[in-house]
Amino acid sequence: MRYARISIGGRAVWGRVGEREIELLAGSPLQEADPDVLGAVPREGAHWLPPVVPSVFYAVGMNYPRHIAHAGAATPERPEVGYRANNALTGHRTPILKPAEVTGRFEAEPELVAVIGRTLRRATHDEARASIFGWTIGNDISARTWQHQDRSFWRSKNSDTFKPMGPWIETDVDALAQTTALRVNGETRAEFATGDMVFDPFDHIVELTKHVTMHPGDVLWMGAESTCQLEPGDTVEVEIGGIGVLSNPVQLEEERGKQP
Amino acid sequence: MRYARISIGGRAVWGRVGEREIELLAGSPLQEADPDVLGAVPREGAHWLPPVVPSVFYAVGMNYPRHIAHAGAATPERPEVGYRANNALTGHRTPILKPAEVTGRFEAEPELVAVIGRTLRRATHDEARASIFGWTIGNDISARTWQHQDRSFWRSKNSDTFKPMGPWIETDVDALAQTTALRVNGETRAEFATGDMVFDPFDHIVELTKHVTMHPGDVLWMGAESTCQLEPGDTVEVEIGGIGVLSNPVQLEEERGKQP
Repeated sequence: MRYARISIGGRAVWGRVGEREIELLAGSPLQEADPDVLGAVPREGAHWLPPVVPSVFYAVGMNYPRHIAHAGAATPERPEVGYRANNALTGHRTPILKPAEVTGRFEAEPELVAVIGRTLRRATHDEARASIFGWTIGNDISARTWQHQDRSFWRSKNSDTFKPMGPWIETDVDALAQTTALRVNGETRAEFATGDMVFDPFDHIVELTKHVTMHPGDVLWMGAESTCQLEPGDTVEVEIGGIGVLSNPVQLEEERGKQP
Repeated sequence: MRYARISIGGRAVWGRVGEREIELLAGSPLQEADPDVLGAVPREGAHWLPPVVPSVFYAVGMNYPRHIAHAGAATPERPEVGYRANNALTGHRTPILKPAEVTGRFEAEPELVAVIGRTLRRATHDEARASIFGWTIGNDISARTWQHQDRSFWRSKNSDTFKPMGPWIETDVDALAQTTALRVNGETRAEFATGDMVFDPFDHIVELTKHVTMHPGDVLWMGAESTCQLEPGDTVEVEIGGIGVLSNPVQLEEERGKQP
C-alpha cells in the first residue's frame, strides 16, 4: 500500500495512492489500521506534502562502504545517528530553494528512509523489523561550504527545503533488495545497491532503542553512497525500486522578501 | 501568565498555573489567545509534562564566556545551533534515569529556554523579540564518556529522560535580567547571570531565520555557564528567577525490562 499526505485547501490530508486516484482518509494510517475513506481526488496535479512529519528526525551519516572510502573516513564500528530538522522537509515536486548566499558545491544525496510504525524500546532485531510501517525516499541536500565552515549542520543541511521526502510511504517492498538511482534532468548520475550498508535500518533501531524510545512516525534516513552537484534550473530525481520516484526542481531563492 | 501541560488520565492537557490551582484549558495558548477554561485541579500532586513538544528542538552549545574559557574553546563568531530529540524530554518532578551502562561524569547543565510563539522567517531583532511566547527552564543532562567517544550526541545528550523541561512557560518575565541557580539536594552548585551570553536568544533567532522558518512551539535552549555531577538518589533543581524551579530526582535505570 502507498500512503501519502497531500494538501487539500491548505489542509494536510492522508491518502491512499492508486494508479490514477488518491483516496482521501479520515485519519492517519500510522494511528489506525484502516481509516475511513472520505472521497478521492485525481493523482495528477496533487500537491504532495512530506508523507510524515516526525517527532524525531534521525539521520545516519557514513553508511555506505564506497562513500566512506571516497571520503577517506573510518568505517563506523557501531550504528550512530544524528538529527535533522522538520523545517527543512518539503514534498514531492516542490522546489528545492538554493539560498543566494550559498557558494561552492550544492549537492543531492539519495537516501532510503524507514518510517517507524510502533513505539519501541530495547527492540530485538525481529522487533525492529516488525516496527517498520513502510519506506519512503529522501534527498539530503547539502551546501558543502557551510558544512565545512560551521560548527553544526544547522544551515548546511537544514535550511528550508533542504530535505525533500516522498512521494509516499510504500508498505509492501523489500527495500534493502532494491537499487537507488539519482538523476538530474533525466540523466543518471549515480546508481547503487540500496542495501549495501555498513549497518542496516534494523541494526540502527536495535542500537538506538537501547537508550531511546522510538515512536510511530519517526523517520530514519539511511545515508547515501554517492552525491551529485545541483544547479538552479535542474530537476533532481531519486528513484528507489519498488518505492517510487521523488522529483524536485531546483530554484535560486530570492535573497529578500521570501515568505514562509 | 504561567502555562503548563499536565497529564489528566493519561491525556496531555494545557493549564494556566495559579498559586494553588491549575485551570484546565480547552486548547493550546500557542494556537489561540484565550482558550476556554474546562475546570481546575489542585496544583499539589499534578503530573507535569514537558510544557511543549517542539517541532524543532534547537540547542545552543558554547554560549557563556566563563564556560567557553573553562572548556578552552574558541568564542563563537556568530550564533549557531544544534538539535536535540523529543524522546529525551521529560517534565518537572519526573525522574532522570541514569543508564546502567553510563560510566564517568553524568552532569546537569541549567539552561534558559525560549519558546517561540509565531511563524517567522528573516526576522529583524524586534520581530525576534516579539516572537517569544514565553520562557521555561531546561536541564541538559550529559553523559560525558559517551559525549567524547561517540561521533554524535545521540545517547550522551538524547537518551530518554535526559532533557527535563519545565515546570511551565512564563510569559511575563525579563528572562535575561535573572539569575540561574543549580542545586543538588538543596545545596547550591552553580549560580550565574542568566543573560551573560555571547549571543542572546534574539541574536540566534535573527541568524537562524535567515535560512530556517521557526514555528510556534519550537524551543531554543540557550546553554549553561556551569555544570555539576549527579548521582542516583540526588534531587537536582534548576531555578531561574521570575520563571520557577525545575526539580527532578535522579535514579539508576534498570538495565533490563524498562518499559517506555
